[in-house]
Amino acid sequence: MVIGLGTGSTAHYAIEALIRRVHGGLRIRAIPTSERSAAQARAGGIPLSTFAEHRRLDLTIDGADEVELGTLNLIKGLGGALLREKIVASVSARLVIVADHAKLVDRLGTKTPVPVEVVPFGWETTADRLRRLGADPQSRRDAKGQLFCTDGGNRILDCRFRSISDPESLDRMIGQTVGVVETGLFIGMAQIALIADAGGVRSIRRGG
Amino acid sequence: MVIGLGTGSTAHYAIEALIRRVHGGLRIRAIPTSERSAAQARAGGIPLSTFAEHRRLDLTIDGADEVELGTLNLIKGLGGALLREKIVASVSARLVIVADHAKLVDRLGTKTPVPVEVVPFGWETTADRLRRLGADPQSRRDAKGQLFCTDGGNRILDCRFRSISDPESLDRMIGQTVGVVETGLFIGMAQIALIADAGGVRSIRRGG
Repeated sequence: MVIGLGTGSTAHYAIEALIRRVHGGLRIRAIPTSERSAAQARAGGIPLSTFAEHRRLDLTIDGADEVELGTLNLIKGLGGALLREKIVASVSARLVIVADHAKLVDRLGTKTPVPVEVVPFGWETTADRLRRLGADPQSRRDAKGQLFCTDGGNRILDCRFRSISDPESLDRMIGQTVGVVETGLFIGMAQIALIADAGGVRSIRRGG
Repeated sequence: MVIGLGTGSTAHYAIEALIRRVHGGLRIRAIPTSERSAAQARAGGIPLSTFAEHRRLDLTIDGADEVELGTLNLIKGLGGALLREKIVASVSARLVIVADHAKLVDRLGTKTPVPVEVVPFGWETTADRLRRLGADPQSRRDAKGQLFCTDGGNRILDCRFRSISDPESLDRMIGQTVGVVETGLFIGMAQIALIADAGGVRSIRRGG
């Protein structure tokens, strides 16, 4: 089995759980979505693989910043790895999201902005184009106040929208904007969300 | 006047001509689309600017690999700078293309493939997605046989299509493909093409 490994605090716990299963005899290979998750998997003894060896993954486990009830459409990327996460999710037979119940929303964009990865060259003009789509783009900064830089050397513009009524078409419009590398909208990708709350973990299926 | 400077052999001559005009008293500032064009402009005494100072350009002068008669839709990017060229063109009031007559075609894709800039991570899966759009993607290599690397650290997949009947929708579909940074299709961007042949230079307008 080939598994995609997400990035972020929740993905961290999922990878820890996988490491325990591997020590218990589970045979998997994994493709990580960040240097951070790669290091964690390597240290835990999960054998890593690449797309040169496997073009299709059986399963990807990842977190999310917002999970829309019913559709399981997602906003991802507050961890900064949305591009690799989307590439890995797009070739996975199944995407399983692990999140706490505070991430569940009735409509995307309610709590968090949509992270958009943009190329550094001319980013000011890309921000203008995103404003014309209704966004209020803010350059993401790291804990030290420096402009955040992705694994691919790009920037993140966190884009708050007044209302996201049609996330699929918004994803398409942002995606074809000149200067945009990828959006944090994950539409129709997740099949199952494992939602943790005080009562334990419940599983929600798309359409359920 | 703020002018965008293209990249490539034809743009090189256009920048040389601009340098002579600047020495003759023309007052411009320029935003270059590559390190190469920046160095040429700097050496020639053209003052450079940035998008932090100017968000709109009056004019961009650039070459093209194919120019479609009538629409002036373009294929660009054989020089490797399509992303910056597209960002600069997209904020220019006018895009003037300079090309020799061998670049004129009745239909785009006749002579050259469409260059597509893709992120290195998972590029094999991005190539699969482009194949599903009808492309035959080939990784571009440099003169030494190494994988070509763009100014933004990405790869170029040169995508030959059997036939490009609707370049606008193809540009949109490629642009929203996961892993794609930008396409070399420039749709509705050029207003004028200066075409050189044995008889001199003639000017072609869009729709003309």
